[in-house]
Amino acid sequence: MIVQRPRDNGLKFKGFDLGVSARWLQEQRKKSLARARVGLNPREAALIERIKRLKKESGTHSPSAWTLAQRIPELRLKVDACFLSNPYATQLFLMHFHREVVRPRKLRALLELYPSQNRVIAAKLGRVLELNPESIFVGNGAAEIIQAILHRFTHEKILVNLPTFSPYYEFTRPDTQAVYNVLRKEDNFCFNPDAYLDLVRRERPDTVVLINPNNPDGGYIPYVVMRGLLEELRSVKNVIVDESFIHFACEGNGYLYRSLADQVGRLPNLTVVKSMSKDFGVAGIRAGYAVMAPDRVRTLLDNGFLWNSSGLAEYFFDLYSRPDFQAQYERERIRFIRNSRRFFAALAKIDGLHIYPTHANFALAELSGGLSADELVCRLLIRRGIYTRTCDDKKGLEAGKFVRIAARNRPENAYIIRSLRRMIG
Amino acid sequence: MIVQRPRDNGLKFKGFDLGVSARWLQEQRKKSLARARVGLNPREAALIERIKRLKKESGTHSPSAWTLAQRIPELRLKVDACFLSNPYATQLFLMHFHREVVRPRKLRALLELYPSQNRVIAAKLGRVLELNPESIFVGNGAAEIIQAILHRFTHEKILVNLPTFSPYYEFTRPDTQAVYNVLRKEDNFCFNPDAYLDLVRRERPDTVVLINPNNPDGGYIPYVVMRGLLEELRSVKNVIVDESFIHFACEGNGYLYRSLADQVGRLPNLTVVKSMSKDFGVAGIRAGYAVMAPDRVRTLLDNGFLWNSSGLAEYFFDLYSRPDFQAQYERERIRFIRNSRRFFAALAKIDGLHIYPTHANFALAELSGGLSADELVCRLLIRRGIYTRTCDDKKGLEAGKFVRIAARNRPENAYIIRSLRRMIG
Repeated sequence: MIVQRPRDNGLKFKGFDLGVSARWLQEQRKKSLARARVGLNPREAALIERIKRLKKESGTHSPSAWTLAQRIPELRLKVDACFLSNPYATQLFLMHFHREVVRPRKLRALLELYPSQNRVIAAKLGRVLELNPESIFVGNGAAEIIQAILHRFTHEKILVNLPTFSPYYEFTRPDTQAVYNVLRKEDNFCFNPDAYLDLVRRERPDTVVLINPNNPDGGYIPYVVMRGLLEELRSVKNVIVDESFIHFACEGNGYLYRSLADQVGRLPNLTVVKSMSKDFGVAGIRAGYAVMAPDRVRTLLDNGFLWNSSGLAEYFFDLYSRPDFQAQYERERIRFIRNSRRFFAALAKIDGLHIYPTHANFALAELSGGLSADELVCRLLIRRGIYTRTCDDKKGLEAGKFVRIAARNRPENAYIIRSLRRMIG
Repeated sequence: MIVQRPRDNGLKFKGFDLGVSARWLQEQRKKSLARARVGLNPREAALIERIKRLKKESGTHSPSAWTLAQRIPELRLKVDACFLSNPYATQLFLMHFHREVVRPRKLRALLELYPSQNRVIAAKLGRVLELNPESIFVGNGAAEIIQAILHRFTHEKILVNLPTFSPYYEFTRPDTQAVYNVLRKEDNFCFNPDAYLDLVRRERPDTVVLINPNNPDGGYIPYVVMRGLLEELRSVKNVIVDESFIHFACEGNGYLYRSLADQVGRLPNLTVVKSMSKDFGVAGIRAGYAVMAPDRVRTLLDNGFLWNSSGLAEYFFDLYSRPDFQAQYERERIRFIRNSRRFFAALAKIDGLHIYPTHANFALAELSGGLSADELVCRLLIRRGIYTRTCDDKKGLEAGKFVRIAARNRPENAYIIRSLRRMIG
């Protein structure tokens, strides 16, 4: 018996014995549910067309919730689970920002005056990161940094894992060839160091990229494996390790994470890239940094990147460099990781979703029901106000099957779980 | 007789007949004043040392007022006449920003969410500028745009006028040779089109740069001359016209300005660069754009510059694109130009300062008294809280002689005039 619940267009199912195998019954149930749910009213169908058009305009990235809200104001966005962030850290940052900037009317100075130059901000960051400030390059978001190092230091060939964050092959110079190390879903997208090193020896790229944890699957290469890998990769001209999600990746049972940034002093071919948008949910501010050999920082600064941080980004880095803020942030980081683990466990229990192991603040979900990834993402958006990310545009992932879902705060996570259960569970 | 006025450490002079020529007397007076004023107390001398160190760290740019205030908090900065802006437009922008973003608590969305991609913002700008949006490249400040086009489209040789805005020769690729067309102070830094075209034919640069009005002298090449020049420069691969100060440059007796941006459709080698920091005093936001052939915009966007505008920059461009805001801005632009003209006229009357003709929101002043540019800038800063710009680091200008002074609002302009009269007049 299938009971239609018109209030939220969701469905509930009660099974009963038809005298057939449980497996056959389950399959029929899924097909029937999927058929029923495909039905869209004309308003929904029109909205979906507009969403798809906007997605197409955005290339291999998703339109931001901001763009969505502006371009399709009819959407009632409740939860942005496309955006990768820690909402508790966002809250913490905003509290400080209001108390220290907005209320004492200091916002004007941040908007009006030239921000400090790159090296001035790097000096502050160097103190909190306990790194040589001359090895720090401050960026207008990690995207700018990726572009800068690929344009400047990468020449013939770059090796990236698939699936990946697309700028690593999109932002290369036109004369750079991209080659891929494909992580297979059959291996849970696990990285195999030996196979990788074989590929490096065969392809001889001048640049290799390791995103750790990886985006969009959340797979993690432990610190000790990375250390060994870096030794083996000493002959590669550029080794880029993107640690934008490292704050969510804990080693062992505790909540400690280990960055490779302090290895840059030893390994002149290493560049560690760090976005701040993921830890703090401040993508609108555009803040990131990279750690690399001082002569590379000098090369970049010698002909550009002078005032590439905004006044707000400078305030953010100032705050981030303060020990009192660091202590508060650490609490919010752990709180978020705890909640995220519960969220991923609950996601994994939903029928019709396979969740891959993740060490990041998102999970890659594979759909096995009747809905395609695109259909699920659009329905979640227009019916539940939840914005998730279809991975149809991700090289190395079968189209129509994969959705990336970001962890949010507890009530938002619960709402995502409830909505998914109704829609596909 | 020299009367010391300890309150502001300034000096007043009363001349009397010594039976010598007026000219000799005047010279003696200047020398004597200069000697007296060189005297610094130890606190001032120490401050000056710190200012000079900070300036040295900032290379061929001045430390921002923001950096100055942070690094030397003892300075009581009252007027930032180093920063080139229209303070009335800043006020107008801030009023809107508070009313539309801060008060209705919409700031969070600007900080938290990803801003729109480059093309989305270009589409909005295209409407207000009445230009093809595909020919607009949005930048994280003009500095980023200059870097992008020099790195991507300039190869062997770039021709820039001297004096100039230094990124035009600093941000080139290491393999690009810079050659110069020197504007002479004897000609009031006037641009000579014929001599220029001769130089272009001789040097055969692949890129030429014309900043109009020019920074730091404010010299202006009329629209009709520019149109003719662009025709003659059709064979040069890249013609960059930087119109960052064009809103202050009026043709004829009225307040109209004429941009060359609409010529890009006709001239595929033309790029018009526009900073927004100068018109609106929002340097902390980092906002600028360039107009160039659509295939060049595509080339730049094909491998980068995806999210290079912050959420605040997007709000700024949204506001700038609104007709109601444009009408209000136009009033503030004219009000500022009127005040600036009075200010430059008053500056020109100060003994010991020669002011070059300017069509921008600043004036280049040559010192003929006993104080060097550096000394004047430091004294204005520590004794009067006025921040001006020494041009000692500007190629093509004799060191020690030139100071660039920005026009501000009326009371600030009056304070600058009073202070300069006391210090050198």
